[in-house]
Amino acid sequence: MKVHILSIGDEILIGQITNTNSSWMARLLNNNAIRVQGISTVSDQHEEIIEGIKTAFLKSDVVLMTGGLGPTKDDVTKKAIADYYGVELVFSSETYERILKMFEQWGRKTTNAHREQCYMPQNTVLLLNKLGTAPGMWFDEAGKVLVAMPGVPYEMEYLMEHQVLPKLLERFPRSPIAHRTIQTVGEGESRIAERIAQFEDNLPPNIKLAYLPNMGRVRLRLTAFGDHQTTIEAALDEKVQELVPLIEDLIFGHGDISLEAAVGQLLQTRNLTIATAESCTGGYLAHQITAVAGSSAYYMGSVIAYSNDVKINQLNVRPATLKEHGAVSEATVREMVAGLLQLIPADIGIAISGIAGPDGGTPEKPVGTIWLAIGNQEQIYSIKLQLGKDRLRNIQFTSVNALNFVRQWVLGRL
Amino acid sequence: MKVHILSIGDEILIGQITNTNSSWMARLLNNNAIRVQGISTVSDQHEEIIEGIKTAFLKSDVVLMTGGLGPTKDDVTKKAIADYYGVELVFSSETYERILKMFEQWGRKTTNAHREQCYMPQNTVLLLNKLGTAPGMWFDEAGKVLVAMPGVPYEMEYLMEHQVLPKLLERFPRSPIAHRTIQTVGEGESRIAERIAQFEDNLPPNIKLAYLPNMGRVRLRLTAFGDHQTTIEAALDEKVQELVPLIEDLIFGHGDISLEAAVGQLLQTRNLTIATAESCTGGYLAHQITAVAGSSAYYMGSVIAYSNDVKINQLNVRPATLKEHGAVSEATVREMVAGLLQLIPADIGIAISGIAGPDGGTPEKPVGTIWLAIGNQEQIYSIKLQLGKDRLRNIQFTSVNALNFVRQWVLGRL
Repeated sequence: MKVHILSIGDEILIGQITNTNSSWMARLLNNNAIRVQGISTVSDQHEEIIEGIKTAFLKSDVVLMTGGLGPTKDDVTKKAIADYYGVELVFSSETYERILKMFEQWGRKTTNAHREQCYMPQNTVLLLNKLGTAPGMWFDEAGKVLVAMPGVPYEMEYLMEHQVLPKLLERFPRSPIAHRTIQTVGEGESRIAERIAQFEDNLPPNIKLAYLPNMGRVRLRLTAFGDHQTTIEAALDEKVQELVPLIEDLIFGHGDISLEAAVGQLLQTRNLTIATAESCTGGYLAHQITAVAGSSAYYMGSVIAYSNDVKINQLNVRPATLKEHGAVSEATVREMVAGLLQLIPADIGIAISGIAGPDGGTPEKPVGTIWLAIGNQEQIYSIKLQLGKDRLRNIQFTSVNALNFVRQWVLGRL
Repeated sequence: MKVHILSIGDEILIGQITNTNSSWMARLLNNNAIRVQGISTVSDQHEEIIEGIKTAFLKSDVVLMTGGLGPTKDDVTKKAIADYYGVELVFSSETYERILKMFEQWGRKTTNAHREQCYMPQNTVLLLNKLGTAPGMWFDEAGKVLVAMPGVPYEMEYLMEHQVLPKLLERFPRSPIAHRTIQTVGEGESRIAERIAQFEDNLPPNIKLAYLPNMGRVRLRLTAFGDHQTTIEAALDEKVQELVPLIEDLIFGHGDISLEAAVGQLLQTRNLTIATAESCTGGYLAHQITAVAGSSAYYMGSVIAYSNDVKINQLNVRPATLKEHGAVSEATVREMVAGLLQLIPADIGIAISGIAGPDGGTPEKPVGTIWLAIGNQEQIYSIKLQLGKDRLRNIQFTSVNALNFVRQWVLGRL
């Protein structure tokens, strides 16, 4: 099965938004060993959409479309699909009932546009969208499948995971394939490659290794192809057992787990609680930790000390320390941890202060200078990072480092 | 002139990287009134590249390619272009001299791959790339232009700004196009559509309106086409003047500005500071606020009171209030604001407590029940949201609501 991803939307063609939907979909498909032959974007005009579908099908068995299914007037996608197949739009009372029920639950009223939205190409199979008003649409004609989904990311993601992917795998049976994913943090792709060079050279031809780096983390994905599922699963398990000891210090998890969830599990297993004090990351670390459902079991809270006043009054940082060493200094983050643990009596405290940029750097402390400290009532450990000039990237990369810092602390590796 | 952007690269097709190059290029072209007809990505294989060029030229006068010109993947793209035109690759001593000189300056040695890199399709005009080894390549055959650039973002950006764009504007007389973007928050797209239905129905055929919804915010984009730039710009300005009064309460900005930046500007203009107290959003609101460069001018800090202990000990919420009304209640968020402003003496305090999900709901307070309060030393205003079941979406949507809450408070609309 070859898939083409087709995005509909002028907002992509004028560069107003970046097409993150297509990369999310490509990643999901790739993880399921489905080949993406191409990705394209066309404008939300009738002729362009039809042309886009035709072109996409030239080299693919499946076309996955996103965008152009909302309840407003710029919605031409359904009409284009209907005309592509030469069918009429018919009213789906099933969809209308569902929208009415959703709005009733929310205590809000539907508009005429919601009724309009319920006209669907006659030949569609509707895919239930639990997170929005527009259902997904599945078309299966002449041996080829077209799927249309709303462009709202979480609605598309829901439909892809719960409806489209299972149906595709059922519709296009494929030869056995298996994956194992090992999640690492703390080293770049080339350093890991060096450490496992021999392992990689000795892989049999039916097992491939991929490096998937993302902001301080690298996922290692082993993929095996073969005739029998059980044989390739066993071969993969054996390879994982060979690989793990080579990079054990870097591995935070297996499979799809995020670093923040892995750290959360580690804390919960050891019955430890944590609190945070953030300056330059401005709450991003707290957000990462609390994005994990159930994090209230180990996360107590944070003081975001964006201003020096808050550092002094809440975290008990001495004005003399700020004056002598500056807010971005080893002394300050150490005092922040100590002050934090007085305020919020968690088992572990972590503090961050740095210059996220783009402004605020000096020759001595350029943009990207970040201090972190971690500790408990007995001891505090601190470290300096020297990152780049991009504000958001500095914030995110620092949070990844902080989470790894917590992991290493709990494991007694600091 | 219609342009097609063609990205070359397996790393995009497997979802390893997001195609930010194409959105950057689309934005630059759009700002210069050049219409992007389509965007597509193909794999870095000879046949796929040739096919991609052919398809792209079906509906465009110009194809801008990125990727596949580094010293490793080099051969495939250039060979494909040469074969597309039916010409040979010839050695460019001009390019080789330049690479030698660059490496001499860096004190590094070239490899054989750098020499290989200097073979170019015979019919190319080279575009000087001051930031890297691979030059851009310009082809002009049969009335259509193909440009190939390296995929490294800053090299592509340099070439686009200094070489490609000026040459394109000289080569093709452009057809005028103009945009206006109005940013709104507080109503969904269908509600807005109702409010401006008459305006929309009366738009002339050369002006299009698009709704671009994103998590509680809706961008309205007016696009005009015509023969004269000044005429369509004036027509658009007139339409904006008609549109604004219809939805003035919802508009937080014009153009590319984000809600968090707009709220920041509003606070800064009025010389107001703000502090936050977050429970269920776990730092996401603070992160949104501090993602804006320069936010330290108005943002003081936050207490993330994830546990009840922090609510009691830091924010001075009375244990009796928690016991009687629960952590997710109007009484609690009101006490959180009062306590926050005692701790951090900002002009405005905002507090959030809710059940983000997926667990923790009760029949009385289901997942998605969120209380917000905003206030100063004199008065506190509170409101309840009833959101859905998706944790991350609840967190993000609540933050958008909180920012809108701040905006309305400052504007005296609460």
